[in-house]
Amino acid sequence: MSLPDRVKMVEVGPRDGLQNEKQPISVQTRVKLIDLLSNSGLRVIEAGSFVSPKWVPQMAASEEVLAGIRREPGVTYSALTPNMVGYERAREANADEVAVFGAASESFTRKNINCSIEESLERFRPLAEQARADGIPVRGYVSCVLGCPYEGDIKAEKVAEVSKALLDMGCYEISLGDTIGVGTPEKARWMIETVARSVPLEKLAVHFHDTYGQALANIYATLQAGVTVVDSAVAGLGGCPYARGASGNVASEDVLYMLDGLGIHTGVDLGRLAKAGNFISAELGRESNSKVARAIGGEHGRVAGD
Amino acid sequence: MSLPDRVKMVEVGPRDGLQNEKQPISVQTRVKLIDLLSNSGLRVIEAGSFVSPKWVPQMAASEEVLAGIRREPGVTYSALTPNMVGYERAREANADEVAVFGAASESFTRKNINCSIEESLERFRPLAEQARADGIPVRGYVSCVLGCPYEGDIKAEKVAEVSKALLDMGCYEISLGDTIGVGTPEKARWMIETVARSVPLEKLAVHFHDTYGQALANIYATLQAGVTVVDSAVAGLGGCPYARGASGNVASEDVLYMLDGLGIHTGVDLGRLAKAGNFISAELGRESNSKVARAIGGEHGRVAGD
Repeated sequence: MSLPDRVKMVEVGPRDGLQNEKQPISVQTRVKLIDLLSNSGLRVIEAGSFVSPKWVPQMAASEEVLAGIRREPGVTYSALTPNMVGYERAREANADEVAVFGAASESFTRKNINCSIEESLERFRPLAEQARADGIPVRGYVSCVLGCPYEGDIKAEKVAEVSKALLDMGCYEISLGDTIGVGTPEKARWMIETVARSVPLEKLAVHFHDTYGQALANIYATLQAGVTVVDSAVAGLGGCPYARGASGNVASEDVLYMLDGLGIHTGVDLGRLAKAGNFISAELGRESNSKVARAIGGEHGRVAGD
Repeated sequence: MSLPDRVKMVEVGPRDGLQNEKQPISVQTRVKLIDLLSNSGLRVIEAGSFVSPKWVPQMAASEEVLAGIRREPGVTYSALTPNMVGYERAREANADEVAVFGAASESFTRKNINCSIEESLERFRPLAEQARADGIPVRGYVSCVLGCPYEGDIKAEKVAEVSKALLDMGCYEISLGDTIGVGTPEKARWMIETVARSVPLEKLAVHFHDTYGQALANIYATLQAGVTVVDSAVAGLGGCPYARGASGNVASEDVLYMLDGLGIHTGVDLGRLAKAGNFISAELGRESNSKVARAIGGEHGRVAGD
């Protein structure tokens, strides 16, 4: 058992994080957040989502966000795209990468988008084909990989099946999401080992929510299993920390602190990352969900006037 | 690498947790907390501390606490004892076990009790001898095992040396504390492996504070190294969660959720444990620091009138 030398951190705060906020965040704030994030050394930032603003008003004007950011060379600014309409908008907005999503739970898929998993994946096929023709990489998300709010346990074989379908469709990377944060380390490791029999390990990312406080332990276990791509959200954005079933993403600062301590290279600077997290926490008017950010808070305070 | 089948959870909330509260907690509340904890299946509960109430007013009247609790058969109710005076009080109060403490940092020891590590340990020798004569087991704590607020990194060899001294003095178990919560998993594992060359692994306990959110990952790593005793505090009591350098103990509920998920037997019931945590959180008038408690909150609500 050995740990990887390098890990790619995928920052999902501006999308997966902010899309759950009650109040939509201004374009200006989203732009500043993304610019602070790219300044920290992060190389992949999920910048927005081209879903209908009727469904996710928080992600409205993602075009303006992508137009407003300072594009750092070498940084990939990605966007979630649920369908061809969204894809066309993302391409127009010069998203460097797009993402599609499936779930490993039939019940979850049925409740959320009223179709089967297979049907949901079929809808992405034309999008993936067009993206390939356009030379735009596609990332695939799989949700509910360690549990579903409706059906409980999820078979790792099902996760592998959905992951393989996304890979075959053309996704270059598959992000495995513990959407409700119920997983524990050995289950996470076993899930990864099972999926890695269908999808090359180097194409797998892990995406943990910290609802039950298990995210870092799970990440550590999956690093031991050979995973080298980790999703996280600065300041632990996403979900409400004090509501039942709260589902904040694992905080990027806490992930980075662990990776630094493990001697794993990421290219990301903790102080700058914390600055981005403190900025958005101040904008949202609440404490950061990152324990590291709270512990080092005084060193990297608010950036008002910055 | 394999995980243990069983883990002994040592609950330190009523002592290590509550001693950091600004306002002393009433004897009645401390008694009720301990009774709820023993009702959860926990077999070791640190019930109080026989330090001078001048120094730690929060732990005043620990005699009354030990006299007031419902003694559950098979449960060890322990107490911290800094010196012979404290030891005599603990024995009078029928504490089942006492605990002494050293630090792995010379600077920390000097700043806190104005002597060297060696001198600090020497002070416990008569206490340990008397306890042996009385047939009362002594537990030893070592603080700053993964870092010191004054001197930074701490050598694992130093931790081993202090641990061995406590063992030789008669301590039956040595609890290794990351007092400021700065450790990460591989450092924690390596520290344990180093100490285990001087003290039998089965006599080692880990005691993590969650200041940087690393505690569960560290516990997981030390379980992999063969540790079978884990300290924690219900509701993550201890320290202020929103202050710089905050140092709450890792929450017992979160530890138990992970151990349950790992298939490790503890004999503790999560629902009952959460009930104890929700009780003390309500008494303190704040949200629990346990993410698990917040996630399952609705199921095990306040126990007013219970």
